[in-house]
This record gives sequence, structure tokens and C-alpha cells, in this order.
Amino acid sequence: MAQKITPASEDYSRWYTEIVQAAELADYAPVRGCMVIRPYGYALWENMQSALDRRFKATGHQNAYFPLFIPESFIKKEAEHVEGFSPELAVVTIGGGKELEERLIVRPTSETIINAMFAQWIRSYRDLPMLLNQWCNVVRWEMRTRLFLRTTEFLWQEGHTAHATEKQALEETLRMLDVYRDFAEHEAAIPVIPGRKSDTEKFAGAVRSYTIEAMMGNKWALQSGTSHFLGQNFAKAFGTQFLNEQNELEYVWQTSWGVSTRMIGAVVMVHGDDQGLRLPPRLAPTQVVIVPIWKSEEEKAAVLIAADAVIAQLGTVRYHLDARDDVSPGFKFNDWEMRGVPLRIELGPRDVQQHQAILVRRDLPRKENKTTVGLDSLANSVADTLESIQANLYQQALDFRESNTSHPRTYAELKEAEGFALALWCGSAACEAAIKEDTKATIRCIPLDQDREVGPCVYCGKEAHEKAIFARAF
Amino acid sequence: MAQKITPASEDYSRWYTEIVQAAELADYAPVRGCMVIRPYGYALWENMQSALDRRFKATGHQNAYFPLFIPESFIKKEAEHVEGFSPELAVVTIGGGKELEERLIVRPTSETIINAMFAQWIRSYRDLPMLLNQWCNVVRWEMRTRLFLRTTEFLWQEGHTAHATEKQALEETLRMLDVYRDFAEHEAAIPVIPGRKSDTEKFAGAVRSYTIEAMMGNKWALQSGTSHFLGQNFAKAFGTQFLNEQNELEYVWQTSWGVSTRMIGAVVMVHGDDQGLRLPPRLAPTQVVIVPIWKSEEEKAAVLIAADAVIAQLGTVRYHLDARDDVSPGFKFNDWEMRGVPLRIELGPRDVQQHQAILVRRDLPRKENKTTVGLDSLANSVADTLESIQANLYQQALDFRESNTSHPRTYAELKEAEGFALALWCGSAACEAAIKEDTKATIRCIPLDQDREVGPCVYCGKEAHEKAIFARAF
Repeated sequence: MAQKITPASEDYSRWYTEIVQAAELADYAPVRGCMVIRPYGYALWENMQSALDRRFKATGHQNAYFPLFIPESFIKKEAEHVEGFSPELAVVTIGGGKELEERLIVRPTSETIINAMFAQWIRSYRDLPMLLNQWCNVVRWEMRTRLFLRTTEFLWQEGHTAHATEKQALEETLRMLDVYRDFAEHEAAIPVIPGRKSDTEKFAGAVRSYTIEAMMGNKWALQSGTSHFLGQNFAKAFGTQFLNEQNELEYVWQTSWGVSTRMIGAVVMVHGDDQGLRLPPRLAPTQVVIVPIWKSEEEKAAVLIAADAVIAQLGTVRYHLDARDDVSPGFKFNDWEMRGVPLRIELGPRDVQQHQAILVRRDLPRKENKTTVGLDSLANSVADTLESIQANLYQQALDFRESNTSHPRTYAELKEAEGFALALWCGSAACEAAIKEDTKATIRCIPLDQDREVGPCVYCGKEAHEKAIFARAF
Repeated sequence: MAQKITPASEDYSRWYTEIVQAAELADYAPVRGCMVIRPYGYALWENMQSALDRRFKATGHQNAYFPLFIPESFIKKEAEHVEGFSPELAVVTIGGGKELEERLIVRPTSETIINAMFAQWIRSYRDLPMLLNQWCNVVRWEMRTRLFLRTTEFLWQEGHTAHATEKQALEETLRMLDVYRDFAEHEAAIPVIPGRKSDTEKFAGAVRSYTIEAMMGNKWALQSGTSHFLGQNFAKAFGTQFLNEQNELEYVWQTSWGVSTRMIGAVVMVHGDDQGLRLPPRLAPTQVVIVPIWKSEEEKAAVLIAADAVIAQLGTVRYHLDARDDVSPGFKFNDWEMRGVPLRIELGPRDVQQHQAILVRRDLPRKENKTTVGLDSLANSVADTLESIQANLYQQALDFRESNTSHPRTYAELKEAEGFALALWCGSAACEAAIKEDTKATIRCIPLDQDREVGPCVYCGKEAHEKAIFARAF
């Protein structure tokens, strides 16, 4: 950790990659486009998994596991799906030393193989809704990769559901989008804008796609989770039918939705600063680091005893005691700041004498981040401070997004805009494409929550009924 | 569930496959050799994962994630490793629409790719031991597949560790074998024999392999977990070196160890009977099923109120209330017996009047498995009964194994033996091969715990210093 991180203002992309590697979240693998998720990054993912999984189960979903390999003929059954995914596929052509008769696709997503099973399992309306989720790896061949944000292999969860009616499937699509919003806001401390994707940006095979979009530290957008209403597209391709209450055969209505390890990249980019990561307490692998400070062996013994007393008060808080001998306290401070641990407890000989400790918050500037607390009230102080850090990280991110969101009325204003530009759009793919060509900004989403204002399209001037968010995106 | 399961005594293999599918643990996928793990089977796997993961973390291990794809050149670096795995590989030759320059192997196990990273991460003795684990899918091309026991893709965990000394690596190998033994006995209620594999049966690339072997209901063995001492084999192939305290470069000493979804097959085969599964309470997705019984709407209202009172007493017990209207109580009893739920609570109108419930245990024969308990003491009765079921399933399996273990002194006796045969073996691969040729029995392991008896080899009569277990195996 002698490594100096490039300031974000100097080169955001280098800042990101350096921080991810310095904090040991992930590393490039010696396999084209793939990453290794290191223990610190994986622990963060485990905390995300548990927070999401709890929400999925509370909304009636069950986990299952479907095969990694998908017969090539399956991928080809839904026309838009194969068109969208074809350029990104990894293909197994040899198995057990022999050329395969049918080539196998390493799953880029599992709508097809899951429909093949749904078609076997679903017989009548009594089997519906079928509400499944799978935690797994997927592969999409990427030309330009970036740790967590875009890699050939990544980890995610993919929910897949089947319903008796269109209405129920639409409700499910929006229910899971809201689960993602709730997770992003309350666990990752990331404010997000839930909205609809434009047709250009929707999932290959979906009728409609929804997304939560977040603003990163460089004012670009990151699509952080998606929920798709699939209609009967896959059901028709795979013959997934059920007998309704009138004993008539109908195709099921479906949804799919996913959040991936990309969310780790979002946490890095929304909260990180030039000192390193700043992790939200609810997801941080280590919530509190205790750094005892000593100069003599005698002092060391005393502060370590006090550290034990501190630990005894921490209950279920995820803590780490850094009693390393071979580095200085200053080194430790920098190291844990870089790793984004939300709260540091410093314990020196004088603190022990005065029966106190110093709490140092990661979310505030260095001059405002220290408080002295009595050891007797430490448990409450730590709990309150962690909650306050969680809330403050969210508020900082929200303030940043709001101060970098503009409302252009004219195309000239849109071209000038930085960050998120919320503007009226007529719905035409031609306007969308022209804006992208000019500004590199894409439609991130049409926010669900917006005034139903009618006015001229920011590009062509024709009547528009909705506003869209235009932004550069990762 | 009208489906009748083939009795185990009639056709064990059909019994197994039918039970796995009828209980909805898993299904064959429409992809050669692959399975779909259904929600009930996956919930069982999640409980196994959590029981194992807790033990891994308690012994100082951290989770991480390494790539699915391994460059072909990596697999070839360790001579025995490539020889062992070559026939089983699935190979990606096309990515993003183009023929790849270097073919990618879908990981059959991760020693090679992990060593490539260890070689980057490990610099000095201070970085050791490195104690990692990964939960993931792996692929080994199989010609003859069987749900959970042998499929082309399966789920597992693979631990990978690096140490400064041979002694520490050997200790780790045996520590993790003992973690597996403890898990099998205390969570899965499966008695196992920890032992060393013969050279013929060891992992491709290991110096020595250890295993836990369990006896299935047809008296065959199932290798249920393995722990390998890798020596410096992979370290030398990948240049994984560290500076020791004397500032000299040395190769690390390594271990790897794994348990897979095969353990689900072990639970089915060790405990299952002709009525279906019998799940150990500690792993069962549903520990208690409550079946209310009614004939009139009035009775229904009363028993459902009583069911709520029962549920209020269950605390953290994993329960399910089966209030289905469209099937009879008798159907429900059979259904939940088939699914192996350890304990059933029956609640009829007369029980409600008398402030009692009927507890029905899955582990005992039908005539001995019912007790009536007062509703006030239900919480304790349920907790005690679940513990008793857990212990009894273990004891039944142990008794079965012991009564099917013989100690042949002569080759004639060995040929007659059914189940496990514990016999003196001189250590020669020729004797091992001859016995396998004659009897189809292989050496399952050389038990760690055995008297150091010296005597004639059961096959060749030469002096032998150890006993091995010979058995047919899955």
C-alpha cells in the first residue's frame, strides 16, 4: 500500500482501476477479459447477495440452478434474443475429446434454458406464478473490459418468473425494480432513478425493460439493475403453456430481472474519493477498524487490553483489530481509509488513561471527522455513527446527482449539459440516435416518477409527452 | 405425487432416480449430462453451504472467485494433472464470433488458474498461509451420468491454500478432512470413514489424497469429500515462490479440498427408504410440516386458529403449513413423507378440543412414530424430537454400515464379502487392480484410524502393514 492512487480529477478511469486493485477488490486474470474477485471484493458481494436474497425470499421467490450450457438451437428460438446476443457468445465445440454434434453456448443469460424447463413443469394455473431466482456466473464476450463494470465473465442473480396474466407479470416486473431501488438506496447508499428503457436500449427479447440508473463520481450514468417484462415472447418460442381456470391452453406471461457484480463498481464510483474507497456500513466487510497506538511494550499491553474491552462492546458489528507490529499507526490509518472502512477507533495510551477512544469517520473531510467518546458509551456511539455514515453517504450522493442534473429545453442547452439531462423526448429512435451521435449521451431511462408535461421534443421539436434522462454511461 | 416409487430392493438405481425427481430435488436438463437443481434441492444445498461455509470461516479461510475459463496452456503445465483431466474437458474454441487463438477450458477444478494468481500475490512468508475457498460450478465431461452423483456440470466448493512449510500444508490437508467428517456426521447425519486414497485413486496432480467414504443404502461406497496434499507440484509448474525468513526463495506447499452437490445424493441414498426421502433436521429445508385436518368449514376455522398457535411456538424452526383444500390429509401425509420432512404435526378437531397435537416422526417405522403432546409443551417437544431424529438417523446409518462391514482374512472371504471389506493390503497397485478386475471392488481408502496390524496381504500374501476398505462404489 505504498502505492499512490491517481486522483480522480486527473484520470477517472485510472483512478477507478487503481483503487479496485489497491483495495484488493479484484484483479485482472490471465484470461482474456476475465477478473479475479479477491476476498475483500467477494465479502462485499456476499453482503450484497444476502441483502438481495432476503428481499427475494420475502417476496416469495425460491432459488434454483439451471445449466451453464445452452444448446445453440435454444438461443436461436427467440428472434430478437439471438440477434442481440450472437456477437457476445462463447461457444463450446469440443467435449470429452470429441467435436460436439450440437454446439453449446456458455450462458449469457438463461431465459431460453429456463423456458425449456418451465414448459415441462407448468401444467395448469395452479402451478402459477412460478417465481424462481438463480445466483450464477454468465459469460458475454467483451472487447473492452473494465473490472466489475464490463468483463467477459461476471457473477449475478437472474430472476425468472411465469404468470397467468399480463397484469400479474407487469406487476412483478415493477415489484422487482422496486426491490432493486430499495436495495440500492438502503444498502448501497446509492440514489437511483427507476425508469423505462427506450426500445433501442431494451433487453433482447423483452417487450419492455426497466432499469435503475445511478450517477457515478464522474457524472456518467451506470445501469445498476434491470427488470424486464417479457410478455409471451419466450413462452411462444418454447411452447410454455398452461391450462387456465376455464380449461383453455394459454401461453404464460413472463419477467426476468438481474443485478450483478457491476454493483460493486457502482459502490466504488459513487462513494470513492482520492483517498480510496468509502464503503456504506451496511455492506462493508469490515465496519469498524480498531487501531491501537503504542510506543513502548508497556503501552502496547495497556492499549491491547483496552482494545479487548472495546471489542466486547461491539456486539454484531463487523470489526477488525489491526495490531500489526511492522507498520506505523499513520500507515494503518491510510491503509484502512484506502480500503473504505466506515469507522476507525483509535486507542492511544492517553485515551486509555482517560477512559476514552477517538472515533474517526470515513465519510467526512479530515478536519471534521474526529470525535472523542467515553469507553462506557462506546456501543451506542458506534451504532449511531454507523447509521449516520450510511445516511450521509446517501445524502452526499443525492446532492451530487441533483447538483449535476440539468433540465434543458433546447438542443443547444442539451449539448452544453454535463451529468444527467432530463429533457422532453418525442419517443423517436431517430432523435435518440442523432443525440447520441452528436453528444455520446444515450437515453438512460424514461423516469417512472415524472410530471406528465407536454411540450416540444428537445431534438426535433415535435410534441413530446415524456421526459428522458440523457447522459454518458459506462 | 400419484407417482409410485420403485422399491429400493427391486432396482436401487431406479429407486434413486425416481425419488430425486418425485421429491423435486432435481431434473435432467435438455443438455447432455447436465441437471437442473430445483428449489427443494437447492434449498438443501444452501443449508449445506451455510454449514460448510461457517466451518471454513471459523478455520480462517476467505472466499474469493476465480475465472470459469482456463487457458489450455495452464492445464498442460502440471503433467499428471493434464493426463488425468484431458478426457473430461469441455473446450471453448469460439468467442465473440471468432475462432480463439488459445482455446479455453471450462474449469474442471481450479488449481492451475489459482496458482497463476498465487504466483502474483505471494511475495514473502508474511503473505502465508494463504487460505482461500471458492463456491462455483465446474464441468467434467461424463459419459454415464446420474443426478447429483455424476453430471457434466456440478456445483461445489474448492479450497486452495498455500503454506510456508510441508508440515503446515499436511496439517491443513487433515484439518479440512476433519471439517468434512464433522460436517457429514453432525449436519448430514452420515457416518464416514476418513482415510488415504491409494495412488491409483488419488487426485491428478496431488502427492496424497484423503477422502471421507460413506456407505449408501445398497451397501456401495460414495466418496463424499476429498482433501489433497499437493506438495510443491503446482507451485513448481507455476513458479509460486516466496521469500522465507532467511530471505531465500522457496516454493510454497499447497492443499486443495472439495465437497460438491454429490453430498445431496449421499443424503438421499444413506437415509432414504421406499416411502421417499428422510432428511436430517439440520439440513432439511422444511423441518416441520403442520397438517390441519377438517371435515367442515367450522372445523377448518378452528384447526387453522390452532395451527397459528402452534406456529407461534416454533420460533426459528423451518416449518410449512399445508392448508391445501384440494387434496386429502392422507395425500398430504404421503407427500411430505416422500419429501422427507423430519417431523409432521397433525391437528384435527378432536386434538384442538383436547388442547393437543400429534407428532409423527419420519425416522421411525409407521407403527412406532406417533406421540400425542399437549399444545403448551409443544416448543420443547418439537426441539427435542428434531434432535432425537438427527441422532437416530445417524445411528441407523452407523448400525447399517457396521452390520455390512466384514474383515476378510483370505481372498476367498474377500470375494464373498458384501458392503465394506476391511482387509490387509500390501500397498501394491497390482493387487489392487487384480481385486478390482475380479470383484469390481476398489480401494475406497486406507482408514486413518486403524490398528497397526502386520499380516499377509489379502490378495498376494506378502507382508502388509495397513488395512484398506474394499467396496463397490458409485
